[in-house]
Amino acid sequence: MAGNSFGQAFRITTAGESHGPGNVVIIDGCPPGLRIDLDEITADLARRRPGQSRLVTQRKEQDLPEILAGVFEGRATGTSIAILIRNEDQRSRDYADIKDKYRPGHADHSYDAKYGFRDYRGGGRSSARETTARVAAGAIAKALIREAFGGQVLAYTKQIGDLIADVPEPEKLTLQQVEQFADGQPNPVRCPDEAVAQQMITLIERVRKEQDSIGGVSEVVATGVPAGLGEPVFDKIKADLAKALFSLPAVLGVEYGVGFGCATARGSENNDVFVVEGGAIRTTSNRHGGMLGGITSGMPIVLRAAIKPTSSLPQEQQTVTREGQPTTIRTKGRHDPCLLPRFIPMAEAMVALVLADHWLRWQGQSSAQGAQ
Amino acid sequence: MAGNSFGQAFRITTAGESHGPGNVVIIDGCPPGLRIDLDEITADLARRRPGQSRLVTQRKEQDLPEILAGVFEGRATGTSIAILIRNEDQRSRDYADIKDKYRPGHADHSYDAKYGFRDYRGGGRSSARETTARVAAGAIAKALIREAFGGQVLAYTKQIGDLIADVPEPEKLTLQQVEQFADGQPNPVRCPDEAVAQQMITLIERVRKEQDSIGGVSEVVATGVPAGLGEPVFDKIKADLAKALFSLPAVLGVEYGVGFGCATARGSENNDVFVVEGGAIRTTSNRHGGMLGGITSGMPIVLRAAIKPTSSLPQEQQTVTREGQPTTIRTKGRHDPCLLPRFIPMAEAMVALVLADHWLRWQGQSSAQGAQ
Amino acid sequence: MAGNSFGQAFRITTAGESHGPGNVVIIDGCPPGLRIDLDEITADLARRRPGQSRLVTQRKEQDLPEILAGVFEGRATGTSIAILIRNEDQRSRDYADIKDKYRPGHADHSYDAKYGFRDYRGGGRSSARETTARVAAGAIAKALIREAFGGQVLAYTKQIGDLIADVPEPEKLTLQQVEQFADGQPNPVRCPDEAVAQQMITLIERVRKEQDSIGGVSEVVATGVPAGLGEPVFDKIKADLAKALFSLPAVLGVEYGVGFGCATARGSENNDVFVVEGGAIRTTSNRHGGMLGGITSGMPIVLRAAIKPTSSLPQEQQTVTREGQPTTIRTKGRHDPCLLPRFIPMAEAMVALVLADHWLRWQGQSSAQGAQ
Amino acid sequence: MAGNSFGQAFRITTAGESHGPGNVVIIDGCPPGLRIDLDEITADLARRRPGQSRLVTQRKEQDLPEILAGVFEGRATGTSIAILIRNEDQRSRDYADIKDKYRPGHADHSYDAKYGFRDYRGGGRSSARETTARVAAGAIAKALIREAFGGQVLAYTKQIGDLIADVPEPEKLTLQQVEQFADGQPNPVRCPDEAVAQQMITLIERVRKEQDSIGGVSEVVATGVPAGLGEPVFDKIKADLAKALFSLPAVLGVEYGVGFGCATARGSENNDVFVVEGGAIRTTSNRHGGMLGGITSGMPIVLRAAIKPTSSLPQEQQTVTREGQPTTIRTKGRHDPCLLPRFIPMAEAMVALVLADHWLRWQGQSSAQGAQ
Repeated sequence: MAGNSFGQAFRITTAGESHGPGNVVIIDGCPPGLRIDLDEITADLARRRPGQSRLVTQRKEQDLPEILAGVFEGRATGTSIAILIRNEDQRSRDYADIKDKYRPGHADHSYDAKYGFRDYRGGGRSSARETTARVAAGAIAKALIREAFGGQVLAYTKQIGDLIADVPEPEKLTLQQVEQFADGQPNPVRCPDEAVAQQMITLIERVRKEQDSIGGVSEVVATGVPAGLGEPVFDKIKADLAKALFSLPAVLGVEYGVGFGCATARGSENNDVFVVEGGAIRTTSNRHGGMLGGITSGMPIVLRAAIKPTSSLPQEQQTVTREGQPTTIRTKGRHDPCLLPRFIPMAEAMVALVLADHWLRWQGQSSAQGAQ
Repeated sequence: MAGNSFGQAFRITTAGESHGPGNVVIIDGCPPGLRIDLDEITADLARRRPGQSRLVTQRKEQDLPEILAGVFEGRATGTSIAILIRNEDQRSRDYADIKDKYRPGHADHSYDAKYGFRDYRGGGRSSARETTARVAAGAIAKALIREAFGGQVLAYTKQIGDLIADVPEPEKLTLQQVEQFADGQPNPVRCPDEAVAQQMITLIERVRKEQDSIGGVSEVVATGVPAGLGEPVFDKIKADLAKALFSLPAVLGVEYGVGFGCATARGSENNDVFVVEGGAIRTTSNRHGGMLGGITSGMPIVLRAAIKPTSSLPQEQQTVTREGQPTTIRTKGRHDPCLLPRFIPMAEAMVALVLADHWLRWQGQSSAQGAQ
Repeated sequence: MAGNSFGQAFRITTAGESHGPGNVVIIDGCPPGLRIDLDEITADLARRRPGQSRLVTQRKEQDLPEILAGVFEGRATGTSIAILIRNEDQRSRDYADIKDKYRPGHADHSYDAKYGFRDYRGGGRSSARETTARVAAGAIAKALIREAFGGQVLAYTKQIGDLIADVPEPEKLTLQQVEQFADGQPNPVRCPDEAVAQQMITLIERVRKEQDSIGGVSEVVATGVPAGLGEPVFDKIKADLAKALFSLPAVLGVEYGVGFGCATARGSENNDVFVVEGGAIRTTSNRHGGMLGGITSGMPIVLRAAIKPTSSLPQEQQTVTREGQPTTIRTKGRHDPCLLPRFIPMAEAMVALVLADHWLRWQGQSSAQGAQ
Repeated sequence: MAGNSFGQAFRITTAGESHGPGNVVIIDGCPPGLRIDLDEITADLARRRPGQSRLVTQRKEQDLPEILAGVFEGRATGTSIAILIRNEDQRSRDYADIKDKYRPGHADHSYDAKYGFRDYRGGGRSSARETTARVAAGAIAKALIREAFGGQVLAYTKQIGDLIADVPEPEKLTLQQVEQFADGQPNPVRCPDEAVAQQMITLIERVRKEQDSIGGVSEVVATGVPAGLGEPVFDKIKADLAKALFSLPAVLGVEYGVGFGCATARGSENNDVFVVEGGAIRTTSNRHGGMLGGITSGMPIVLRAAIKPTSSLPQEQQTVTREGQPTTIRTKGRHDPCLLPRFIPMAEAMVALVLADHWLRWQGQSSAQGAQ
């Protein structure tokens, strides 16, 4: 029972490696009639694409999606959708090092322990390149939640190293505020606090020069989500969102609302107060991050994910060979000194996939309600 | 597509409410021949039982499990196992308040938004009473991983409020160190740092007198787990463990290894170094918390979960009625001023369920390996 | 990955053996608000109950269901429903024969080969007693399809031995016509062709006196089902209905519409002609049995299942012991000389479960259609 | 919850239409290390390919598979495998008829009722062209069961119209006996009874000249399957095999062993007698078709599927338009006058997929058996 599917009612299944022919996703359960805009898919792929700025890896990929099935005259037919993103930059390289040595912080050793052997070219299936398939599917999930209930998902870089952005009202952010500076120039770190963003850029460049890498935190906000999404008791929306984010490479922690800050809180201060605003029940604060009892409350969903510094380093690191002999390794060539800029569209995709899935699950069960 | 099942190869399905006849779990996929020890199930249920100390809710429940199916002559038959834990203390109460008012921090409003109505008696399905079913199944999962690969799962209270236990080598803890003080007396907070444990007890008692509640952090450690568990790319072991813990009531954050601390780390310091010890590949540190690439590395798994302060408070809180009218509410009677002591066996159960499930999933796929 | 769950959106999970404490079913996904009528569940259980007539096994069971969870004030809450049917007649018997010898036509040998050992008391999990759980859940599925779209499922005995009932318009049958003779007396074979029914009764009694058993065919008809149920390409409604019926004990064949008769047909005669009647698209004949392309067509669904003669026989049969020694076996005591009468409610339950499941699956996917 | 996945431990997910870019399958759960032979995949695709003889449709397709992922140096990596078969012959046609009229016996009306619209080009997803993906995956499943336990699956044409082949020992058939006549010439109907095969050829040619089509029956035999496959109580092997075959286009009936013949049988004659042969427990006859209690018995598995005559006919048929107006339709151009020859590899693929899946499921659960 391998684990290459995600979701139940809106379900994706993916395949693909770093240096194979390409990555493919099959989406099952997309509502018939939904408009599928190839440009939207391409746009999100461009946000996670290597080579988009000098802060990220310089691997050359166009990442142009080809729809193989499930779309007719621009709309989902209701049957399964397949999208292929071919790998282009499979440059001939010397993989001898990766083949025989275990890169620290990587999946090399774990894969060998699990499968007995591995596709060592660029990390194979453990490479973040597999997230192209997720981002392509996520673009369709975004379209679905937008059309179905006006939902929107936006992520941004909250923290890199000690630099923490000040974003007091994340639920009011726009995509443009994340993607561009005020002067219209691209914001390569995707941090909407411009002053901090400039410091982040400087930090990443310094880290890269030092042949090192640096971690960070991303915040993801989903707005326009109605109260009612989430399935007790195991598929609570918080549980599926956490799984979604933890399934991404390099994520070491996830929290929502007040998160780990709840440990020091009293109940009397932590409980958000219900009020009625404009006819709708809301809370005056959002320490609960939009989810109560594992079900959306109608308030914005606010999540944070901690991303570790890239494990691949150009500097020499100690390790062992497959046979257990001590050795050293140095990852040549292209790598991301900080994963945050390219993590943003991945996080958005995974959150959108969960919301699309739970929306359809909810509709299915409650559809017969009128009948009683 | 409701969400009352968890796991795939070792799969549990549960039903039950706070004040219905009882809670039941069906376990599907248990290996035939596994010894099922009713005492082990009862022992873990006793650790989550209300009334076990003066620090927890005083609801009276025996929580004695009845095995309905799937066990013959003390061993699992390989077909589905069913266990029933009846509710006993369904005291006749005045639920008028809960019926018509939304308790702050609770699922009342979310359930109404989702289902249109709810079983308001004691929270119904949103009550933590449903975790009896999980803990019963978790005891069997613990037996499975112990017999299959010598695995063990142990949780303890790491933090309550500002009080943080000093447990330098959590992978060496014993159940006795968590459950008892050095003098053999029960440790009601399940914190193995005795000095801090005493302060925690004092804090919880003060909080209770103040008609308030307090949050905390639990650390969960799994030892003896071989390298190789976890299914790329969505069912990474870290993703399923996070979902498992987030599916428990009151969990607002989960991290593993260095967790959110990775945000400020450099790759050169964050990567754990591979070495060979006693013929096995290990790492000299465990910042990766026993999981690399979403697959176990053979090092101890170390997770932490943040638990919010109990939402039910005896003190008056502002809220609204179902009809949206402002009102106040005061939760009468029994409640836990701090959830940590009873959370410990729940966390262990969920982690054991994930390990049992992934073990069987792995064995299934790799079983044909010898054939090639 | 054991197989004790069925369905996806309306999903049941069962446990229980012939001579354990009881059988339990958890239903996940039932729409909130659905009225749950304990009498309806009890009534269907009574139709499959042993001892209902002298034609069936005389085991004494009340088969009274207890709802453990998921129902509040007579309605489904939307969370999981659990129902328990206790075994009462677990008379102390000498199982030595069954324990050590493989009954011909039974699962004894297969279970041993699969699991290494088995609960030999009355067949354990392989006993048809497990269908109590299915029938209880099926009664709720029947209520759901009735409330949601006016659907109805009815099965009857079409054939026993060479005796074939003449039922020209099965889609017009009523439950009463199946359950009672024209004079109001119970029809113990559930065959609405009274003349043939009387012959069937005579045949079954003769077979029983001869210490033998006899097979037959059941026809199942579902009416009021809208066009549109069924999920390409694997979960075609015909595929899930066939699986549902084949999952019942003793079923050796399933066909729908013209069934195996299609082998000798020409396309020009086999195709049903579309016409418009009363504004709806229908076919002038129903050789397609209500399903085209694996999706319901709006015409009545007509299925047939072939049931083998009971394997347990009071007469002596040749076999081997667990150790492979030749021996003979004679099944003592109670058994059904013909399975058809008690098969009828089982077949109805399974068909109703599939229709309920597919209805909810369809609603889930198509719920967002209005949004585009 | 759409239905484009099949299997659990060995799980395939497919997408693709008749006239879209191509068909793709993702296989999840393939054991790592399994040799993947592109020639084997291509060979089975050639057996289902259009244009292979003058008895089948003359659509021109090479059906050459491209492996997109999951295979490294000729072996399965253990992660997901993706295979693409592009459509080549998408000749520009006039689809006006199919677009606006409902073809009798086809899924056109059902798809419209379900999804609101459809890809009408050549039937879209309802076309049997989607089975390319199944056959490609089935070739890998065949390799798996061969390597894992020496299993083999072979199907042949048992009946077309009134012509019934005499194949007394189907478990001894070879692929060559099905594919070729004794003189080495290809056998275009895949019926190993040469005399009957010649009559079948004549019949199909006559039917085609009459602008008509004809049905038939295929028998599928699986040998070398150990006792123990199948999961009580819903995923009985007979239930999953029946679903597998019923999920194929045009299948109206499935039976195993004595099948519908059981209706007229007495238990005393129907029960197969257990004996020991060569140290193994076997039965002296195989009326049970290799499955008892829904679990394989170690005897050959013997199934039959009834296939309806092709619905597409060059002769004029009455029908209605989408708007419900009476009209006539005549399917132009290429079609199969009899589906049997190309059905054979599809049936083999589906049966092999079920056996591979259940083998892995069984291994997973029983892997821990040694531990107790």
